[in-house]
Amino acid sequence: MVQHSSPQSAIGLSKSDLPTPALLIDLDLLEANIAKMAAHAKSVGINLRPHAKSHKCPEIAKRQIAAGAVGICAATISEAEALADAGIPGIHITSPMAGREKSARLVQLTARQPDVMAVVDNAIHAQQLNDAASSAKVTLNILVDIDPGMHRTGIPAGEGAIALVELISRLPHLRLRGLQCYSGTTAHVLGYEARREHSLQAMTPTLELFAELRKRGLPLEIMTGGSTGTYNIDCSFPGMTELQVGSYVFMDIEYRDIGGQDGPVYRDFAHSLTVLSTVVSRSHADLATVDAGLKAFATDRQFGPEPKDISGVKYNFGGDEHGILAVDKPSREIKLGDKLEFLVPHCDPNVNLYDRVFCVRGDRVEAVWPIVRGFR
Amino acid sequence: MVQHSSPQSAIGLSKSDLPTPALLIDLDLLEANIAKMAAHAKSVGINLRPHAKSHKCPEIAKRQIAAGAVGICAATISEAEALADAGIPGIHITSPMAGREKSARLVQLTARQPDVMAVVDNAIHAQQLNDAASSAKVTLNILVDIDPGMHRTGIPAGEGAIALVELISRLPHLRLRGLQCYSGTTAHVLGYEARREHSLQAMTPTLELFAELRKRGLPLEIMTGGSTGTYNIDCSFPGMTELQVGSYVFMDIEYRDIGGQDGPVYRDFAHSLTVLSTVVSRSHADLATVDAGLKAFATDRQFGPEPKDISGVKYNFGGDEHGILAVDKPSREIKLGDKLEFLVPHCDPNVNLYDRVFCVRGDRVEAVWPIVRGFR
Repeated sequence: MVQHSSPQSAIGLSKSDLPTPALLIDLDLLEANIAKMAAHAKSVGINLRPHAKSHKCPEIAKRQIAAGAVGICAATISEAEALADAGIPGIHITSPMAGREKSARLVQLTARQPDVMAVVDNAIHAQQLNDAASSAKVTLNILVDIDPGMHRTGIPAGEGAIALVELISRLPHLRLRGLQCYSGTTAHVLGYEARREHSLQAMTPTLELFAELRKRGLPLEIMTGGSTGTYNIDCSFPGMTELQVGSYVFMDIEYRDIGGQDGPVYRDFAHSLTVLSTVVSRSHADLATVDAGLKAFATDRQFGPEPKDISGVKYNFGGDEHGILAVDKPSREIKLGDKLEFLVPHCDPNVNLYDRVFCVRGDRVEAVWPIVRGFR
Repeated sequence: MVQHSSPQSAIGLSKSDLPTPALLIDLDLLEANIAKMAAHAKSVGINLRPHAKSHKCPEIAKRQIAAGAVGICAATISEAEALADAGIPGIHITSPMAGREKSARLVQLTARQPDVMAVVDNAIHAQQLNDAASSAKVTLNILVDIDPGMHRTGIPAGEGAIALVELISRLPHLRLRGLQCYSGTTAHVLGYEARREHSLQAMTPTLELFAELRKRGLPLEIMTGGSTGTYNIDCSFPGMTELQVGSYVFMDIEYRDIGGQDGPVYRDFAHSLTVLSTVVSRSHADLATVDAGLKAFATDRQFGPEPKDISGVKYNFGGDEHGILAVDKPSREIKLGDKLEFLVPHCDPNVNLYDRVFCVRGDRVEAVWPIVRGFR
């Protein structure tokens, strides 16, 4: 009878002794994923700055850096702060840090760690950041965020973007570093060829802009973008200097189903991330209820989790704390108290539901890593 | 320039200085909701044991107890442990604590706080709990969980349930306390009359079982169930002794739209819970991007968040960290860096995304309360 008052007390336990629902990483698979992406980047001669929004875990960032990454991307200021606390170099914040509070924290973070980079898509924001940096006597490293056509963030490639780049190059407390163009819609386009075509359409205006601005003598070193869905596509685009891939460390059902270069299943990386649950009710022969529901799995897609190592079982959400399994000739018996492991629908928001991840090698817990809580 | 390294440092700030996305409670509205439900229970003569799965916040539980609640419900062992740490009496865990790890923690919690109650829907589990309680020399307070027809947890009302109740009454380290029947599907049935009929259908077999078992002399004191959707329905069912309402403290879009006794909008309780966001990109006249996306709002329903105090703005999810607002003749100007507040789709999983809530009175932060992280 172990009370898990301290997360570290779980080290050495068997999976079956963990409190559920639990987020698990299979370390062998995680390490293989990190090594494979690093080898790919090296072989094609592109820099990797993997995205921490997927894992929110400084321990994984350290392993990505050790494998050769030039830095780590962050989506939020709190992720960036946590990465800096962990000694991660080359942090690039991929969302605009607009608004007084975030701009102030970006300046403070850059004062601590001068190589931090951030994006701007708006002249007013550029001016505000320059003023804040001036007061704090720091220089902010800035990439201009270009809209790939999603209209989420970024300025459209064109005259406005050229004017913004030129403005930033003139502002004394901003240091122009490059362009960012991240096409989130491309990442999950089904089929490798369709995805390649989609990425080419989305990225070409920015790639042309990057070339043009360099021709004009603007000091752009970095052209960043790309996802786990396009790591083997965008790397060959002219001018791309780095990739900000995220999900490859874990994989999920959504990425599995986009198809790979070799067929309808994307199998380039292994499913290292799962959620472990316990069967807590078994009142009906054809149903079993587990203790992992809306609060344990990402619910932003049309599909739910899938059992990892058992067939004849279909998961359906059963409210905040439960999943109800439809059981039809299961490949093994399902008893009250049994543990079942699930692949997750979408890794990024799934990880975000947990504040720790149990790292297993085989059946044994080897480490417990903290997940950075998102909003602080 | 404030760095929010300590949550308490936010006390006294204006809303507009908070880090975003931020979970907000309007304290005036929260207090009114707690008082209104307490007055209702008092007037109809039923006990309240409000559910903490909605708020996961011991500070709110304290206020519910102060307003007259007989205890607080919890959905997970970690919620129950946190409530106990905060000195909350009368904790009732509404999900079966099956499996070795959870059973052990239930026994440990009961050793600390002997009035803790839990549910059982399975004879094997009853026997396991009795054995664990025996080893620890404690007596567990047990309610039998009856399936309202959802087939999530609970044993069907009938001979099997009677046998389980009788077994529990004989096991020396279990103390039989009552029955639980919670119909989650009823809570969101549209229309008051349809909801009343649905609840009657779902609850009647259990209410009859409760009466029959008492007639047989079994020591059942508690008949618990009910939701924010049925608080003014189930209270009049014969034999009901308490309600485990949860969402009424906050409200959400889902509950608003079920309709009330007086019309198509459920307005019995006020929307005290919101998410505050910042406009971080404004590159298009008809669009604005805020820093609150899939990780900031519950995504388990077909509908998204709604802006609280502005019209002409429709929220659409824009990935992990962003929402893209379609802007059409907005009732006020929307500029880069502006703050916008949103009603949440579904309060329980929405709260679960945050580890703190900023409590405001008017525009000022009066308190910062921790949210219990779900899985430990």
